[in-house]
Amino acid sequence: MAITRREALSELGSLAVGGLSVGIASGLLGSTAHAQVKQPGTTLPWSYSKLDPHKAAERAYKGYFSNRCMFGAFDAVIGELADKHGEPYASFPSQMMAYGGGGVAGWGSLCGALNGAAAAIQLVSRNPEKLIAELYAWSERTALPNVNLNIKANKEDYYPSSSAVKNSVSGSVLCHVIMSKWVAASGKAINSPEKKQRCGQFSGSIAQKTVQLLNDELDGKLVFKYPLTEQTAGCVACHSGKTSLLKNTQGKMDCQSCHVDHTK
Amino acid sequence: MAITRREALSELGSLAVGGLSVGIASGLLGSTAHAQVKQPGTTLPWSYSKLDPHKAAERAYKGYFSNRCMFGAFDAVIGELADKHGEPYASFPSQMMAYGGGGVAGWGSLCGALNGAAAAIQLVSRNPEKLIAELYAWSERTALPNVNLNIKANKEDYYPSSSAVKNSVSGSVLCHVIMSKWVAASGKAINSPEKKQRCGQFSGSIAQKTVQLLNDELDGKLVFKYPLTEQTAGCVACHSGKTSLLKNTQGKMDCQSCHVDHTK
Repeated sequence: MAITRREALSELGSLAVGGLSVGIASGLLGSTAHAQVKQPGTTLPWSYSKLDPHKAAERAYKGYFSNRCMFGAFDAVIGELADKHGEPYASFPSQMMAYGGGGVAGWGSLCGALNGAAAAIQLVSRNPEKLIAELYAWSERTALPNVNLNIKANKEDYYPSSSAVKNSVSGSVLCHVIMSKWVAASGKAINSPEKKQRCGQFSGSIAQKTVQLLNDELDGKLVFKYPLTEQTAGCVACHSGKTSLLKNTQGKMDCQSCHVDHTK
Repeated sequence: MAITRREALSELGSLAVGGLSVGIASGLLGSTAHAQVKQPGTTLPWSYSKLDPHKAAERAYKGYFSNRCMFGAFDAVIGELADKHGEPYASFPSQMMAYGGGGVAGWGSLCGALNGAAAAIQLVSRNPEKLIAELYAWSERTALPNVNLNIKANKEDYYPSSSAVKNSVSGSVLCHVIMSKWVAASGKAINSPEKKQRCGQFSGSIAQKTVQLLNDELDGKLVFKYPLTEQTAGCVACHSGKTSLLKNTQGKMDCQSCHVDHTK
């Protein structure tokens, strides 16, 4: 161990200017506890400068078709910052985000676009947990995709032209649930061109919202509009987390997307 | 667009030595399609050299207590490689993986240890989808945690000594489900010291298995032992993916962890 907790805390103190959150502090501790030598660019958060939400949406759409949904949403933020500012964004191996496609390697767990957006948020936000919570709750309750794209297939055609596609409210952040509900709402098959169009534009919608949240954070005008729904808050009060009555689970996902309310 | 698809494919051809998978090819395309200048260290996979599975388990346990489960599992692989080889591993901003804690910022979606392990696998494996599938299916069906740790709290005490803890089979890769089942099996609360012990050792178990899979891949003796269960394969045949009858969802998670088999 190259550095003690006390040294880490002291180093942290010298860095703790202007509202570093507890989450970030814990991040620094994690880094200093293990790293033998601190490399440039490994201290978070990286700085963020305003991006264009619509450009991010377009980039996520294109990124989806080259490297899947998690890459699409992540690259829409970090790739745009790399193009504007170079390092440390440019050296990030963004293609790694391919793993999140289809809810991680096709497993249908966490939606890849939401996974990639959370990763990007953690890199550049001073309030990552709050921004992620707002993004996730918004995505559960909003008819998506909601972007207005006018993309023409490029000459080499690795992505198709954007076209109108059915949106739906999923009530979930899980790929399997989101896709099942969208197939039911649209009547289109899971392997249809419309499904790819939907997931490309969904990646765009998540990227657009992520950039809006990051821009608002930078401007100091972030407003959190999506607390737990009344129904989920009711479940959570008894079951979820350390302040609950029974303390027998954890999570903030909409309970009704899998469970029936047994109190009714 | 600095580079066309044809140029990208040509560049890909010159790089395509020794079994680059289709997934990796798609990763390279994703990168070349957007990046103005290709930075060193952004082409995947990074090289992997054998690690000690038990050391990885210990590091993941400690990492969990400093920066949560996703960081623990990720840093157990990439941090170990950084300590042995320096770059490009050392410059990776691993603290970003804090976002996955508690199924992403406490949302209870994908288990953070499994999210972090998949991210690490994608960075260094030539068969990331297959390795992730094996890891995830194994984790669904194995009583975890399964590591034998003998860790003493360090002088500064940021992690506690390891102690015996109840294991359980979760049938799921989702944090909320895994935790609900563990609380039921152990009788311990979600905010108990035993729960933290369990998640620290679970991160260790996932890291240990991940390193075993990566070592086996390197030795050319990878054996995939966890195809879909008979029951899930039955559901998938009708519902999931492009070869299914109805093509009305996607995913590989164990269906019975949320659904009743309606064919019985």
